[in-house]
Amino acid sequence: MVATFWRPQRGEGETVSRTQADQYLAADGLADRYSAVRALSEALVSPLSEADATLQSMEDASPAKWHIAHVTWFWETFLLRDHLNGYRLYDEDWPFVFNSYYEAEGERIARFSRGMLSRPTLADILAWRAHVDEAIQPLLEREELHPLIDLGLAHEQQHQELLLTDIKHALFQNPLGPQMWDKGVAQDTVRPQGWYSHPGGIALVGHQADGFAFDNEGPAHRVLLEPFALSASLVTNAEWAEFIADGGYEDARLWLSDGWAWLNQNKIAAPSYWQDGKAFTHCGWQNRAPDAPVTHISYFEADAFATWAGKRLPTEFEWEAIARGQEGDAPAHDPAGGNQLDGAEPPLPTGSEGLFGDCWQFTRSAYLPYPRFRPAEGAVGEYNGKFMSGQFVLKGASCATSRGHSRPSYRNFFYPHQRWQFTGLRLAKDI
Amino acid sequence: MVATFWRPQRGEGETVSRTQADQYLAADGLADRYSAVRALSEALVSPLSEADATLQSMEDASPAKWHIAHVTWFWETFLLRDHLNGYRLYDEDWPFVFNSYYEAEGERIARFSRGMLSRPTLADILAWRAHVDEAIQPLLEREELHPLIDLGLAHEQQHQELLLTDIKHALFQNPLGPQMWDKGVAQDTVRPQGWYSHPGGIALVGHQADGFAFDNEGPAHRVLLEPFALSASLVTNAEWAEFIADGGYEDARLWLSDGWAWLNQNKIAAPSYWQDGKAFTHCGWQNRAPDAPVTHISYFEADAFATWAGKRLPTEFEWEAIARGQEGDAPAHDPAGGNQLDGAEPPLPTGSEGLFGDCWQFTRSAYLPYPRFRPAEGAVGEYNGKFMSGQFVLKGASCATSRGHSRPSYRNFFYPHQRWQFTGLRLAKDI
Amino acid sequence: MVATFWRPQRGEGETVSRTQADQYLAADGLADRYSAVRALSEALVSPLSEADATLQSMEDASPAKWHIAHVTWFWETFLLRDHLNGYRLYDEDWPFVFNSYYEAEGERIARFSRGMLSRPTLADILAWRAHVDEAIQPLLEREELHPLIDLGLAHEQQHQELLLTDIKHALFQNPLGPQMWDKGVAQDTVRPQGWYSHPGGIALVGHQADGFAFDNEGPAHRVLLEPFALSASLVTNAEWAEFIADGGYEDARLWLSDGWAWLNQNKIAAPSYWQDGKAFTHCGWQNRAPDAPVTHISYFEADAFATWAGKRLPTEFEWEAIARGQEGDAPAHDPAGGNQLDGAEPPLPTGSEGLFGDCWQFTRSAYLPYPRFRPAEGAVGEYNGKFMSGQFVLKGASCATSRGHSRPSYRNFFYPHQRWQFTGLRLAKDI
Amino acid sequence: MVATFWRPQRGEGETVSRTQADQYLAADGLADRYSAVRALSEALVSPLSEADATLQSMEDASPAKWHIAHVTWFWETFLLRDHLNGYRLYDEDWPFVFNSYYEAEGERIARFSRGMLSRPTLADILAWRAHVDEAIQPLLEREELHPLIDLGLAHEQQHQELLLTDIKHALFQNPLGPQMWDKGVAQDTVRPQGWYSHPGGIALVGHQADGFAFDNEGPAHRVLLEPFALSASLVTNAEWAEFIADGGYEDARLWLSDGWAWLNQNKIAAPSYWQDGKAFTHCGWQNRAPDAPVTHISYFEADAFATWAGKRLPTEFEWEAIARGQEGDAPAHDPAGGNQLDGAEPPLPTGSEGLFGDCWQFTRSAYLPYPRFRPAEGAVGEYNGKFMSGQFVLKGASCATSRGHSRPSYRNFFYPHQRWQFTGLRLAKDI
Repeated sequence: MVATFWRPQRGEGETVSRTQADQYLAADGLADRYSAVRALSEALVSPLSEADATLQSMEDASPAKWHIAHVTWFWETFLLRDHLNGYRLYDEDWPFVFNSYYEAEGERIARFSRGMLSRPTLADILAWRAHVDEAIQPLLEREELHPLIDLGLAHEQQHQELLLTDIKHALFQNPLGPQMWDKGVAQDTVRPQGWYSHPGGIALVGHQADGFAFDNEGPAHRVLLEPFALSASLVTNAEWAEFIADGGYEDARLWLSDGWAWLNQNKIAAPSYWQDGKAFTHCGWQNRAPDAPVTHISYFEADAFATWAGKRLPTEFEWEAIARGQEGDAPAHDPAGGNQLDGAEPPLPTGSEGLFGDCWQFTRSAYLPYPRFRPAEGAVGEYNGKFMSGQFVLKGASCATSRGHSRPSYRNFFYPHQRWQFTGLRLAKDI
Repeated sequence: MVATFWRPQRGEGETVSRTQADQYLAADGLADRYSAVRALSEALVSPLSEADATLQSMEDASPAKWHIAHVTWFWETFLLRDHLNGYRLYDEDWPFVFNSYYEAEGERIARFSRGMLSRPTLADILAWRAHVDEAIQPLLEREELHPLIDLGLAHEQQHQELLLTDIKHALFQNPLGPQMWDKGVAQDTVRPQGWYSHPGGIALVGHQADGFAFDNEGPAHRVLLEPFALSASLVTNAEWAEFIADGGYEDARLWLSDGWAWLNQNKIAAPSYWQDGKAFTHCGWQNRAPDAPVTHISYFEADAFATWAGKRLPTEFEWEAIARGQEGDAPAHDPAGGNQLDGAEPPLPTGSEGLFGDCWQFTRSAYLPYPRFRPAEGAVGEYNGKFMSGQFVLKGASCATSRGHSRPSYRNFFYPHQRWQFTGLRLAKDI
Repeated sequence: MVATFWRPQRGEGETVSRTQADQYLAADGLADRYSAVRALSEALVSPLSEADATLQSMEDASPAKWHIAHVTWFWETFLLRDHLNGYRLYDEDWPFVFNSYYEAEGERIARFSRGMLSRPTLADILAWRAHVDEAIQPLLEREELHPLIDLGLAHEQQHQELLLTDIKHALFQNPLGPQMWDKGVAQDTVRPQGWYSHPGGIALVGHQADGFAFDNEGPAHRVLLEPFALSASLVTNAEWAEFIADGGYEDARLWLSDGWAWLNQNKIAAPSYWQDGKAFTHCGWQNRAPDAPVTHISYFEADAFATWAGKRLPTEFEWEAIARGQEGDAPAHDPAGGNQLDGAEPPLPTGSEGLFGDCWQFTRSAYLPYPRFRPAEGAVGEYNGKFMSGQFVLKGASCATSRGHSRPSYRNFFYPHQRWQFTGLRLAKDI
Repeated sequence: MVATFWRPQRGEGETVSRTQADQYLAADGLADRYSAVRALSEALVSPLSEADATLQSMEDASPAKWHIAHVTWFWETFLLRDHLNGYRLYDEDWPFVFNSYYEAEGERIARFSRGMLSRPTLADILAWRAHVDEAIQPLLEREELHPLIDLGLAHEQQHQELLLTDIKHALFQNPLGPQMWDKGVAQDTVRPQGWYSHPGGIALVGHQADGFAFDNEGPAHRVLLEPFALSASLVTNAEWAEFIADGGYEDARLWLSDGWAWLNQNKIAAPSYWQDGKAFTHCGWQNRAPDAPVTHISYFEADAFATWAGKRLPTEFEWEAIARGQEGDAPAHDPAGGNQLDGAEPPLPTGSEGLFGDCWQFTRSAYLPYPRFRPAEGAVGEYNGKFMSGQFVLKGASCATSRGHSRPSYRNFFYPHQRWQFTGLRLAKDI
């Protein structure tokens, strides 16, 4: 049995029913997968009050209610409106408030005003979802729409993760420290130790197998790697505490110039959500587990830590090469299987998720187009390409990433100061 | 029978049950008045969803839920905690989130974070209110506490008005234009015409009769007035439209320097809530009534209009002198009776509220202490005095002011750029 | 012999040649006064380098070069252009850069861009000044222009003071602590002690005698005063140090709400220009004299100090009543003579400047129009009236005020947070 | 004979004496090159007034005077102080004001306060320069210091370019449009047409020959290129005008998301310095030459133009591969010689500077470390590495780049919104 999300961090998300995940991963066809994804979104908002679901704590984040409405707008706009003859919009005023950033789809509400949408209510939106789910059934059978539907599913899964990170950020603003879920029972896991080494040479990277991938994962192409090694383990809370104790946040020499300015301006001295020995989670304030991977750090912090440790961050291609084991795209639901480690190196412990799972891992690669990349035509083409400046690539998946949403070629991306996602790091070194 | 609020503007607030107001105004004793005031607060939030009640649209405004919690914090802190032996706080963490600005009461949540308080829920707060209401009963009989209880009632009434102006501002942010109440039936009223004149001389101003008043309304003292006249009518929407049509918002010569800068920076070209021929109200978008008093203007706009009209704003003392008719404090529930106009001047129409009612009226007086003013001791002393810089005095009452909360000596105050209250103007001239 | 400026503070300004001041005060006619005022402006920039004279350290301040150009623009525009037949502008592009805020005179350079005017050079501007001085001679004899010329002289004197406070602020930004003048020899003066009392009653205030006054000083009118007393001495550096030592900057209860926010946001803990035991002056860093009047404080600080001291700030009318001794406008060059103190109270020491001189003194009066105030027609009417919101009145004169520029009815005005002028305080109390 | 700078743009810089450039390029030894570089810096400030040289128009820019002082601080600190026994600082207070960003060298003046340094004067700084030049002579002969001296020379040359772009930006702020130089005579040049193609494969990039290079240019390493072509010509003003006429600045689809936000926030509708048919230059406002390369554009604009043109920007490696012609580092003073174009492609016109000269050319490569990059030890190690986030690489050289300062491996870098440098673009395409 598999969980809905990748290895949950100390109980966060444990209480989300596993049923949906099972259904999704067990699904034979598209219609089943559609149902499973939609059901999971609704399960995620179920512990939230109407007010919880309306909170927007910063411009980067959106209300939970907005997330489940926006994904529905996506289905209604790009599937129903564009491909179902005679379909009439459920409410003609809603595209204005639930479009995210698609310029080609017209004007929309200012991003930081999403938190003002007390109406429509959660019930209104759930009714809209049901309406769309019913209307869409005939389209799920049309094969020429399957790529677009796959995109819609991946899109909704992305918003599931954002919903979780955004509501965490919102609840954190409340000095009373409310919780969304009860604390689950943390499972002890044996973490792998050592380094995965790679001899360098030409590697094939980018999406190259069958199955869905975002446009930014392709085209597949060759890159030339120098010999390197990638740590088998993520940096832990305990290691991060050492970095702090050693004055890591006070030594300008460890930091990128922009990072040092950011640190000083925002008085940064620890990962986000840390306070004394505790960390804020979806289950409220909890003691930090020393051996759990550190999360909620920025690129600036990841880079400074790596410098302090005498190591560096991997490139996105180095990470991908290890994740693939040079064997091509691993199946989406079992990425760990793709790791091929030679005998002298640490074997992946049984049941391990390999490089995926606990947290997104910063690479030192800027988020830029691959050779011969072309965005898709139309509004959907705005999906990825237009964000290709100023951001860094992250690889892997986090405890909040929906099952089935990851693969070795997956490229997540954030600005170097952002840290409200479950972001961590895995060190690399030259050999 | 009287309404809960002063003459409601085109139906806004009409649907609030008049029962509480009747109870309040008919109340013989303090305990009855306490009940009536508390009940009205709860009636005001009753049409709001949990999400509506949590919205905070700007730093100046607070969530509806916060208002009804904050007033409860006031009762619990200054009455129950300070005067009821053995009382234990309902929740020890709540003062941090529901203290507004009382420095003497310790640290508190940043003002613009009140909108993040999805918890405690509305139900939690209503339960707290019930608990406090019950616990406070024995104190209502202690005469030495009556001044403090009167302050608490006046305080809660102030927050009733803020609750209404704040939720209006919050709902206005929603492009879907939601409403809080159904539209009531507007009553035609005959507006008085002409000018009330005053011969000048020494007038006694400030609170001087029995009954409750805020500390900033005293001490009563004499001021010397020059001869002047005050308009019997408020400036209307139709008159304001003339001002706009005449280029009033484009002519720098009409504006204070700070006002011109504010106008340009914020692209101001009409009162707040205006769009095309409509205005946003608690009942959603409605056609503007030409003969209704203009509302939601800033001091800068009021001053520019007066300059354009070849008139000026009154001082707070001129306004008060007319309101009193030189007869001393009019009873709080019947201010109109205090106007004494000589024969040649327009009589107040039957049933008129005189100078009170539709909107707060800007004066050209800065909000400053009266001679020999001393703030009260302790935290309660922070109530008014510490705001005495940079603001202007407004007189009267608005359609959102709770019945029984006004009197000729009442001094409301806002910064010259603020306009989310029901603010309007009444012209004055030298004679 | 009199100095150019009022009692200079510890040598600041001492080295400015006294010749001009003598000439000004000794001048029989307008032409002589014109020459004296113009010469003083040029004497003030003479110790400055081309670069010093171009510095603009904040939006509130202007470059020294700009000041002496702007006043010349004023003469050229309102005298030569408007009243000298056939006059052609010296340079048609210069009005755009040297108009300050006169909307009626058209577009102008953004205020905070004045510091970018490395051209025209100081020499260019001095040549322009000479040209204007020569062209203006015939106009000095036309009596109907004398009010306008008097306004021009007063205007240039105001900019002389601003030039001094602005260059002080600019040089202060330089960590090397440069000086503009050598330190002069400080004269010990015996400061008056005690209180000047006033019995209250009706006082006549505002400009009422012959001679020039700004429009905002009139019309003369009666005000009703309560009995009060005004301190014969200014608050000193030593007294201010006591306030600091007693935690004055850390006790919210002493502060206006806006002041407390300002203090926290700007980390204010002492008057401007203070550092350790020193203060920055036009003569560089100097030891602070304990018995010298404190200067460079904001209204917020003045008000907090008065509260701490158990006193209050005077109103502008109280200050004026004491300054006048109820005898009407004292002659501009000898304000001290106007003080009439009854026998039991401290006599003004011989040679004292009375209430004028060391620093501008905050009053608790907001800067608002007097009854029946009307701004002048045309661009010159923008001189004062349009600034009547949000500011406080200061009375007296400072060590940087040009001799002959003060009188009891004079109303200076600044925002409550500003403190780059020589601002101090004199306490008042009710009696 | 060669000019001081790369092909000057329409006369800008033509009037700078060519003597220094001749001296520099003809110099046999280090001492001669040192003299030539130092002399050029002083020639650049010679047309500036004391005030011109003190202007700082934005945080990104520095005063001309500061530039020639800062480079002197670099020599005094890292050569004289660290390597000349017994050397005493010329002024112990100056490091605080003339250190740029070297954290290891201690506290320093806030970057945007450099424009407040009216003192020390230009003459003071020229005297300091002379002092340092004399003291440094014995060190020029010590071979072990040559790498550090080469760094110092390259550093001073970088500041020569910045001095020119910064003073241009400063003079541009002045509405009077002052000039620094008289307009030179523009030479017509025949621009190359067509495309340089590359078959793809493994290329060696990064600094690999003898001679000075910055640390960020190495280590040399191999990269894998896909087949591509690079335009032989830079995009011109006329082509940019077509982009504007075609609505390029109004079509969101052409822009990166961050670029579109930047454009809207800053109301960008043309390259910097454009107004009507003119452009601001060091020689004041001049008519734009249609066939001159467009300059002063941001990365966002370059990328949008390329998208509009159906092309793309090259990577830094593609650009370098063409610049090298696969032959290794071309000599620094003759980069054109490095281009090896096959027969079917456009030959470089006689006397051409190849890919270097008119403007820096944006690449789509983020500024990141090369494999196995290690910053130098000590303060000098802060030179480049710490800026490796959020910026893009530019290749080539501009009309303001000092002769002898360029090479194929050179990596300039700026943020995607910056455009006060002479930045332009050269298109690339896949083949």
